[in-house]
Amino acid sequence: MSNYNFEPKDLNFEAKVYDSFSRQRVMQSIGAQLTKVLPGKVEIQLPFRSDLTQQNNYLHAGIVTTIVDSACGYAAFSLMPEGADVLTIEFKINFLSPALAEIFIAKGQVTKPGKNITVCSGDVIGKNGDKEKIVATMLATIMTIR
Amino acid sequence: MSNYNFEPKDLNFEAKVYDSFSRQRVMQSIGAQLTKVLPGKVEIQLPFRSDLTQQNNYLHAGIVTTIVDSACGYAAFSLMPEGADVLTIEFKINFLSPALAEIFIAKGQVTKPGKNITVCSGDVIGKNGDKEKIVATMLATIMTIR
Amino acid sequence: MSNYNFEPKDLNFEAKVYDSFSRQRVMQSIGAQLTKVLPGKVEIQLPFRSDLTQQNNYLHAGIVTTIVDSACGYAAFSLMPEGADVLTIEFKINFLSPALAEIFIAKGQVTKPGKNITVCSGDVIGKNGDKEKIVATMLATIMTIR
Amino acid sequence: MSNYNFEPKDLNFEAKVYDSFSRQRVMQSIGAQLTKVLPGKVEIQLPFRSDLTQQNNYLHAGIVTTIVDSACGYAAFSLMPEGADVLTIEFKINFLSPALAEIFIAKGQVTKPGKNITVCSGDVIGKNGDKEKIVATMLATIMTIR
Repeated sequence: MSNYNFEPKDLNFEAKVYDSFSRQRVMQSIGAQLTKVLPGKVEIQLPFRSDLTQQNNYLHAGIVTTIVDSACGYAAFSLMPEGADVLTIEFKINFLSPALAEIFIAKGQVTKPGKNITVCSGDVIGKNGDKEKIVATMLATIMTIR
Repeated sequence: MSNYNFEPKDLNFEAKVYDSFSRQRVMQSIGAQLTKVLPGKVEIQLPFRSDLTQQNNYLHAGIVTTIVDSACGYAAFSLMPEGADVLTIEFKINFLSPALAEIFIAKGQVTKPGKNITVCSGDVIGKNGDKEKIVATMLATIMTIR
Repeated sequence: MSNYNFEPKDLNFEAKVYDSFSRQRVMQSIGAQLTKVLPGKVEIQLPFRSDLTQQNNYLHAGIVTTIVDSACGYAAFSLMPEGADVLTIEFKINFLSPALAEIFIAKGQVTKPGKNITVCSGDVIGKNGDKEKIVATMLATIMTIR
Repeated sequence: MSNYNFEPKDLNFEAKVYDSFSRQRVMQSIGAQLTKVLPGKVEIQLPFRSDLTQQNNYLHAGIVTTIVDSACGYAAFSLMPEGADVLTIEFKINFLSPALAEIFIAKGQVTKPGKNITVCSGDVIGKNGDKEKIVATMLATIMTIR
């Protein structure tokens, strides 16, 4: 049902998302990179790192969550008017397969934009060479802050 | 409604939780420590670190999530029989106040244990000196793996 | 962590909740009753009815959800200032045991009130004579509408 | 990411879903009908009824939830092997626009099937003549019962 051709309210949306991402220090700490910014659609990539794992050497669910939370937040942020910021109120995430892959791609996209509340969905894809599998799926609620 | 006096099925529960936690390499990477292990109830502490922040210098929501996800998972694990492991199927988390504090305490506890499915709730408390505030609250579904 | 002694902003909170509940026509249709209204805490009761069941003759999960959604919404509403209304943005609910009981009691309470966003938790208890069991637990996000 | 061309494990899946739906007495009570059954994809329709409303004369969020919960459950059930049943463990639902329409269409589909756990997503569409809007979106976890 989503309309993937959202109109940005701020033509500077791409620079604004890159700038904010660069100030999320945790992204540098874990080695995540912003790889796509479209209106209402953002991708963040994270190469696997063994110092971010849980007890079975999978990427910890919290780190999977970290990248897709930011991807959803920035998808919402990309549609905000100038001067508005976003705040994640809450999200739910389902873990669909073990987080074991060479690289993880978090894809966030706006399901429904709103003046006060924007709902986003996100997926985390695990890639091993050419093979892809879905690792997690998120549904998030984001509030506009003026 | 929760019964906080759960009977552990494995008397070795405490050592087993500490051992598994020590193998979650992400916990050492972010500086989190396991500070309480009771049957069905686990606490993890994380001192604030500026390299784990988002764009407003608050602890990133994903890191808040990381510690309370592990606290909930280990609360469930503490009630598992010998030889059984746990897997987080999904969780929902609400962020209640800005994650700005000297230390964060993630408290996970079992709401309802089950043979296959255990439901846990978790809170993250932010502490500044003597002052405490609730930062986030989680509801999580965990599966027993045999 | 919840403070159960919330101060109502509108002293007319009880009458206002009863009045709104009486206009929720679905409550009469399913036979639900408002049985407790305190500041930040509301209870709704529903006697079992076989015309509200799913394929195994349990109360349908959607009906369990209906009463605890209203209990949470009214718990939030009880703390609203005069003239403000509430809107449920989203909720998550876990089903903990089969919804088979003589009577179901949905208990909604405010976890954290806020100017714009109020977070509530809710439980549904199934009662058979003196025996009680927890049937479902909810975590809900409610927005203030002015 | 979803593969919409799931292979049913039980060739009798359609009859089995219709049969189970006919035993969900709440569906007859509220006037809901099963209108599509494909492998991993199910639709349920509900014409608006004023006796199912909340205080603003919108369809109550719990009734919106009731139809999409069943749509998701039956989407999962359609992929189950012979003799297996399903149980909804939990779901989250976001309400995206007021539930005011002539007819509501709940669309449930499997996101990821699994031996023990199936994750489904669901949307509720409100239709007024030719106009459609998305009213709610759900993410649900369903367990296989043998």
